Amino acid sequence: MAIATKPASGFRDFLPEDMRRRDYVFGIVEKVFKKYGFDKIDTPSVERLSTLLGKYGDEGDQLLFRILNRGDKLSKALDNEPGEGNLSETGLRYDLTVPLARVFAKYRSDLPPIFKRYQIAPVWRADRPQRGRYREFYQCDVDIVGSDSRLVEVEVVSALTEILNTLKFENFRVHVNHRELLKVMIESAGISSAQESTTLVALDKLDKIGIDGVKKELINRGLNDQQIDKLIGLSENLPDDNREKVNTLIERTSNIDRSKTVGEELLLILDLAENTVAGETLFFDPFLARGLSYYTGAIFEIRSDDFPGSLGGGGRYDELIGMFMKESVPACGFSLGLERIILLLEERGADFGEDAGPDVLVSVFSDELAGESLKVATEIRELGLKVDVYPGSGKFKKQFKYANTRKIKKVVVLAPDEVENGTISIKDMATTDQVTFSRAAYLDELKKLLA
Amino acid sequence: MAIATKPASGFRDFLPEDMRRRDYVFGIVEKVFKKYGFDKIDTPSVERLSTLLGKYGDEGDQLLFRILNRGDKLSKALDNEPGEGNLSETGLRYDLTVPLARVFAKYRSDLPPIFKRYQIAPVWRADRPQRGRYREFYQCDVDIVGSDSRLVEVEVVSALTEILNTLKFENFRVHVNHRELLKVMIESAGISSAQESTTLVALDKLDKIGIDGVKKELINRGLNDQQIDKLIGLSENLPDDNREKVNTLIERTSNIDRSKTVGEELLLILDLAENTVAGETLFFDPFLARGLSYYTGAIFEIRSDDFPGSLGGGGRYDELIGMFMKESVPACGFSLGLERIILLLEERGADFGEDAGPDVLVSVFSDELAGESLKVATEIRELGLKVDVYPGSGKFKKQFKYANTRKIKKVVVLAPDEVENGTISIKDMATTDQVTFSRAAYLDELKKLLA
Repeated sequence: MAIATKPASGFRDFLPEDMRRRDYVFGIVEKVFKKYGFDKIDTPSVERLSTLLGKYGDEGDQLLFRILNRGDKLSKALDNEPGEGNLSETGLRYDLTVPLARVFAKYRSDLPPIFKRYQIAPVWRADRPQRGRYREFYQCDVDIVGSDSRLVEVEVVSALTEILNTLKFENFRVHVNHRELLKVMIESAGISSAQESTTLVALDKLDKIGIDGVKKELINRGLNDQQIDKLIGLSENLPDDNREKVNTLIERTSNIDRSKTVGEELLLILDLAENTVAGETLFFDPFLARGLSYYTGAIFEIRSDDFPGSLGGGGRYDELIGMFMKESVPACGFSLGLERIILLLEERGADFGEDAGPDVLVSVFSDELAGESLKVATEIRELGLKVDVYPGSGKFKKQFKYANTRKIKKVVVLAPDEVENGTISIKDMATTDQVTFSRAAYLDELKKLLA
Repeated sequence: MAIATKPASGFRDFLPEDMRRRDYVFGIVEKVFKKYGFDKIDTPSVERLSTLLGKYGDEGDQLLFRILNRGDKLSKALDNEPGEGNLSETGLRYDLTVPLARVFAKYRSDLPPIFKRYQIAPVWRADRPQRGRYREFYQCDVDIVGSDSRLVEVEVVSALTEILNTLKFENFRVHVNHRELLKVMIESAGISSAQESTTLVALDKLDKIGIDGVKKELINRGLNDQQIDKLIGLSENLPDDNREKVNTLIERTSNIDRSKTVGEELLLILDLAENTVAGETLFFDPFLARGLSYYTGAIFEIRSDDFPGSLGGGGRYDELIGMFMKESVPACGFSLGLERIILLLEERGADFGEDAGPDVLVSVFSDELAGESLKVATEIRELGLKVDVYPGSGKFKKQFKYANTRKIKKVVVLAPDEVENGTISIKDMATTDQVTFSRAAYLDELKKLLA
């Protein structure tokens, strides 16, 4: 019986057409990150569980793919004390931020004092597979570690804006908020610090369940009407302009001391961004919360009216790296939703650049003439063209069909006539015209494909 | 206590300098494969165990990294019948050939009838880590599926030869043999078919233990002196020329019927190769055996006197893909030892091309002038240059040092003087000269970096 050929549940195969699209997008992302002075790193797919556990919250820990211990260790665990905990000491990478923290802590002395890095790599989550949600997917992270300058936030948002601009996304905004300002708002609404995190969780659902949903959620989470009205009220009837909006919120929360300091951090980011492409896309959103618990300062999320959800998010996390070191190190970064971006580009029938397939197919009339075909292919390859040699021999009709399947535009026809007369024929697959050239002239004709 | 920062045993981190080298090599490999008309695919890191098991031999099965089942399935297995078999249904990819076989079987109708593909991706093996042997390493495979033309062998070897030529490897040879010719030799030496595979295993160790080692090994494996002398004798005093060598072996094994047919297949490959770059590198090696059991025809291995071991190998395997389909499908491919190649290039201090780091650092005098620095950086980036903005502010001395760490050649100096006078200073980090330009002229100066 033949073996099942479907990929494992939640995993995907990428055929040549998929790879061309992915490489096109990856290429643009890399180019822009390099243009913004970021260096590339890579980290192992497999990390110790002690590195991964306790960084992503309980739900994250549950979603780790754990790798079975091998040999002695495993049989000991099975014989003596069966239980999940003894079976596995490593797992698949869950994101690219925790590995960055580990890498920065380990190689700090080999790295620039302020480290600007990007990484494009798959991560794995043992989630229930569903449409558009996979167990293996690429993340694309960009971070600056070691600086608490606000300029860092702006550089990161500028790079992402330039990527989306280059990919011809329109009408997107980079929502920005500040974790501390959110806490100031909560405190200002008379919500106790014990209720702070439950309030954040409810606010984080705003773009999914709407303002009425959040109100209900807050009631269910034990807040009273007065608190809720006060909190929601803070965001109502705000001016359109980002700066005026922040200033209004600073006024409305002036009962809290640090309101002004935190607000001014946001104003500084907005001001600095005016000098870059991020100036056009930043949008102050006072209820933006971001799920992950490690954020400590500004937070970001890319949204658009053209599609639901977000294209990525990030923010400042000044405490995470300290978990791997003896001191805390400021950091700010962003994770771009690459898979989402590719899907949206495919849905809108985007132009993924030049087809990367072969330029020319050299036909093979018979096994006897195969050497002649290889010789011609070698000549054409020396020009720098991408050349396929028909991987077999026989009827030209079949070979022309093969060329069409591979979207090859020119076929070099080498039949006994051509070999005898010292000529080469070139068939244009679009017009089906076939023209015969001398062996001295055919390369000039094909050279035109280089232009 | 801080968490351990070393990568898990057998796994590696790649810092920016490593990544530049790797990307340089990966880039050349991809470019050549495209030039030879191969398409790129990717497959999941995780495959079903039913896909992986039984393809690599017992040792291979032992080296699979298995992934722990999650949730219900796992607790059921632990409660009822603990045992490795019930804990895991998937594992990490062990090579790129079995996934190709699965992919070809599944998507055959979407693919060209003859499928030329390459894949560059990590594979995982739970081997004992040692110097130069890792548990995660990249493989680079190129295969042609669906054709039994000998031209296919030649195309594959040509592409690999061109890759190694481009990477400036010298004195390497592509050893070639034919699995059937090897069997003919064994049969011709009076070794029974029951002893064939044990003989192959011993011969496969030739480049590690030498001819005397192989003789001892064959004795230990139960062959008698006469058989051994006859077998070894077949390869003695052969002519230098590949073709003459094959012809001599055909004669020496003429007591076996298929000797001539199989030898002629090898001669055909050698003849066809003369039309390509493979002509210079193919070297007929009658005792080349290749470990993997799935080869059915020509086999290859890249060797050199400049280093021990091989840089990759491959061959024809006409039966493997049939394990995933109702019919057998001919195939031929090659796996290039990318990690080995990178290591050898590093050891010989190879030129890995242009440094991919930023062209320019824009300094930041103070938080107040950070906006001005961002504005200038935006202008320079619009030229297409790679620009880092110092991710902080403060003493220029520190910023110059940062530029040197990152090997940045030009620093844009923007102090209050410059801002007041409407000028920009550019410091050349090699000469330490600093020249002041007007805001109209400085971009022209930096444009020179584009050339």
